[in-house]
Amino acid sequence: MTEKEGMSVRKSENFSDWYTQLVLKSELADYAPVQGAIVYREYSYDIWERIKEFFDSEIKKTGHKNTYFPLLIPESLLKKEADHFKGFVPEVFWVTHAGNEKLGERLAIRPTSETIIYYFWSKWIRSWRDLPVLLNNWNNVLRAEIKSTKPFIRGSEFLWQEGHTAHATQPEAEKEVLYILNLYKKLCEEFLAIPVLIGRKSEKEKFAGAQYTTTVEALMPDGKALQMGTSHNLGQNFSKPFEIKFLDKDKKEKFVWTTSWGFATRLIGAIVMVHGDDKGLILPPKVAPYQAVIVPIYYKESENKIVLQKSKEIFDSLTKQNVRVHLDDRAEYTPGWKFNEWEMKGVPIRIEIGPKDVAKNQVTIVRRDFPEKTEVKFSMLSKEINIMLESIQKNLLEKAKKFFKENTKSVKNYGEFKKTIEKGGFIKAAWCFDGDCEEKIKKDTGATIRAIPFVTEKTQEKCIYCGKNSKGLVFFAKAY
Amino acid sequence: MTEKEGMSVRKSENFSDWYTQLVLKSELADYAPVQGAIVYREYSYDIWERIKEFFDSEIKKTGHKNTYFPLLIPESLLKKEADHFKGFVPEVFWVTHAGNEKLGERLAIRPTSETIIYYFWSKWIRSWRDLPVLLNNWNNVLRAEIKSTKPFIRGSEFLWQEGHTAHATQPEAEKEVLYILNLYKKLCEEFLAIPVLIGRKSEKEKFAGAQYTTTVEALMPDGKALQMGTSHNLGQNFSKPFEIKFLDKDKKEKFVWTTSWGFATRLIGAIVMVHGDDKGLILPPKVAPYQAVIVPIYYKESENKIVLQKSKEIFDSLTKQNVRVHLDDRAEYTPGWKFNEWEMKGVPIRIEIGPKDVAKNQVTIVRRDFPEKTEVKFSMLSKEINIMLESIQKNLLEKAKKFFKENTKSVKNYGEFKKTIEKGGFIKAAWCFDGDCEEKIKKDTGATIRAIPFVTEKTQEKCIYCGKNSKGLVFFAKAY
Repeated sequence: MTEKEGMSVRKSENFSDWYTQLVLKSELADYAPVQGAIVYREYSYDIWERIKEFFDSEIKKTGHKNTYFPLLIPESLLKKEADHFKGFVPEVFWVTHAGNEKLGERLAIRPTSETIIYYFWSKWIRSWRDLPVLLNNWNNVLRAEIKSTKPFIRGSEFLWQEGHTAHATQPEAEKEVLYILNLYKKLCEEFLAIPVLIGRKSEKEKFAGAQYTTTVEALMPDGKALQMGTSHNLGQNFSKPFEIKFLDKDKKEKFVWTTSWGFATRLIGAIVMVHGDDKGLILPPKVAPYQAVIVPIYYKESENKIVLQKSKEIFDSLTKQNVRVHLDDRAEYTPGWKFNEWEMKGVPIRIEIGPKDVAKNQVTIVRRDFPEKTEVKFSMLSKEINIMLESIQKNLLEKAKKFFKENTKSVKNYGEFKKTIEKGGFIKAAWCFDGDCEEKIKKDTGATIRAIPFVTEKTQEKCIYCGKNSKGLVFFAKAY
Repeated sequence: MTEKEGMSVRKSENFSDWYTQLVLKSELADYAPVQGAIVYREYSYDIWERIKEFFDSEIKKTGHKNTYFPLLIPESLLKKEADHFKGFVPEVFWVTHAGNEKLGERLAIRPTSETIIYYFWSKWIRSWRDLPVLLNNWNNVLRAEIKSTKPFIRGSEFLWQEGHTAHATQPEAEKEVLYILNLYKKLCEEFLAIPVLIGRKSEKEKFAGAQYTTTVEALMPDGKALQMGTSHNLGQNFSKPFEIKFLDKDKKEKFVWTTSWGFATRLIGAIVMVHGDDKGLILPPKVAPYQAVIVPIYYKESENKIVLQKSKEIFDSLTKQNVRVHLDDRAEYTPGWKFNEWEMKGVPIRIEIGPKDVAKNQVTIVRRDFPEKTEVKFSMLSKEINIMLESIQKNLLEKAKKFFKENTKSVKNYGEFKKTIEKGGFIKAAWCFDGDCEEKIKKDTGATIRAIPFVTEKTQEKCIYCGKNSKGLVFFAKAY
């Protein structure tokens, strides 16, 4: 990789430019000729496949099944739940023609699938025997975003999973909402090495049509919060207009209780932001397409054969041990060029092997997360690689946790609040739970309530804005 | 399953009604409120996931990578290759508005992704070092179909894989096209138990914009051919208008050679048609969501515990042996009801276990593909199940092969051709390779040329239509 191909902006200097440049130069994504749309190139799609695999196997264990519902939703259907329609209509892409024919009714490209799914459930669900219904969908959704688009973080098309469930009772729905929320937390922390806080959204911030929304929130290095996933309890808000009823064991007809939940390719953006550095990406081993890359080093033709042969042996042996390893045997690039490229691509471990290494039955391994070179004997290699991968995964989480902790602050008064929020990070502050205060704080500072903890700590503090009695401490931040 | 819930049409009596009824009653799919669109319910989506898994792992072995390109394509881009645009424009869904704003340019929902992918390739491909590019996409495509829609077989939205590759030379592109075609054949025969023939399409039947199209064709029980997948050599037909050029090793600038290939959820329809019977689906073990279902049988409360316990043991033991097994322990349905349901759903093997079986350390296993009941000792069960699964997979392919062979005929003159084509099946006949004869035969009989064998048998026969010299024998059929 040449200098021109490398990063020219520092993360600490201009975070936003650094991010965009990294996404493009590491070949995660590229801009499409439609406003706010991107292509998910092979490197980001590979990461997405790993995230999918993790989450998919978890929800299948608990009886969730994947399905696919149509992309196009008739306008009349989207309108059935009024708040939902109002919330989504400004960003809907409308199909008006098929071939040369004008359609009788406009069709919305799904911004989310509640309404089309509920259309079917009103036909399919008849009896308590049909419940619970636990469906998930891996699909694409479109929302016309014109302002502040950013690859992966906010755009007009994204890939996601949307789960939709129907239950006989309210407690069952409630349990599902929290089960998923905790799975999201596990995905973020254990898999992506990104610490998060969880809680409820305020009335203003909840999903259009929900009874309440729960959320998983992370903190980006520029001090802004990023919503990583949401899990909604929709109560009977949708089952009533859509008439999704069942005959219960007691022979009474009842409306079902529904939930919906989703996370998107936005998570890829979070990985880039949280872990990346001035040289490029740093990928947590669990999501990395390649966990290790072997770079053979030789300068004379005569050394070439023995080094390549040994490299292949190492490749085979690590592959057998289920390490995702890549052998970069391209003759047209120098080792130095390759080092830069794989650093940019954030591969957790680089394995260097030259003629002297072969003679000494060893390789040199280099960590991506901090500069450490280790010489390792062939016989110990797969053991050492596995230990190092675990250590990198853990180190990335610890580092992010430290940042999260250092940037989550308590404040005593609104003046302090305003100063602190300018610097970024979460602020834990008392709130009266009145939407007016929330609105005024937002106008004033740009900060929103990111999450209301499930168990609100009792506090003597007064609302940070109005000074009235507080109902608990909540988390504020500026957000993407 | 009650009589009402069971099949009420016979396959031999009304094939079309039988098919639609089976697709709906086995809960593979349901009709959406948009013309020609369906929902892929959990049972069909599960089959699709298995098909994906098989094909995905095959193409990844040969270096293909998955990506995701945007759904919306600006009209100007879709127009760049004239034949391509002309071929697809009658069935394009057009987006004209985002929220309340009218768009400056209409956006097409992708009917296929060549044009949007080539837009990016003209930016990404610079040097011979960048080649070959081997990409695949698992996505949804939309084509406005208003006539003769049929769930899975023809509809306005389907799921598919579309592969797109770029090569430095024509022979490499050619090799790719055939490699994929043979993989499609392998998928159909070894995985879906559906025999196929392969060959080239005629000029009239080729993909809009292709140099030539190769195809995999199966025969349905009503005598109609079904195109299972196509692999296109696009030559430089697209790389020229899209200006996808690279600097070759000889320092000369050249246009790349491209291919594209795809198969769709239509394959699920083929499985239903080819293998199903009057009782419901019959699924080849390799694609079946459940390969075996355990139905515990007890009539007295006292027998309940011991039968259920043994059922669970069997479930655990088969699961450990990687058999996809389901234990149907629902108390609210009778064994007879369950038998009918799982027959409808086409589960390859039913395992019955009652109190007498437990006492004798055995179960009764029943094949779905033909009526055979076998008593098997617990100790031999997993071995027997595996042998039976293999036998079912093989038997389904053999049966389908027999039908295929019996319904592929040679004819000597056009009178015979017309009579034979009415009965259905493939006709192998001589053709002069003139598009006019092809067109007239189609008008006359409804039959099209399904495939031109790669190695055309030399023949003294004259063109079946015009009587002029023939260039070889080709396969005709009526088709979906």
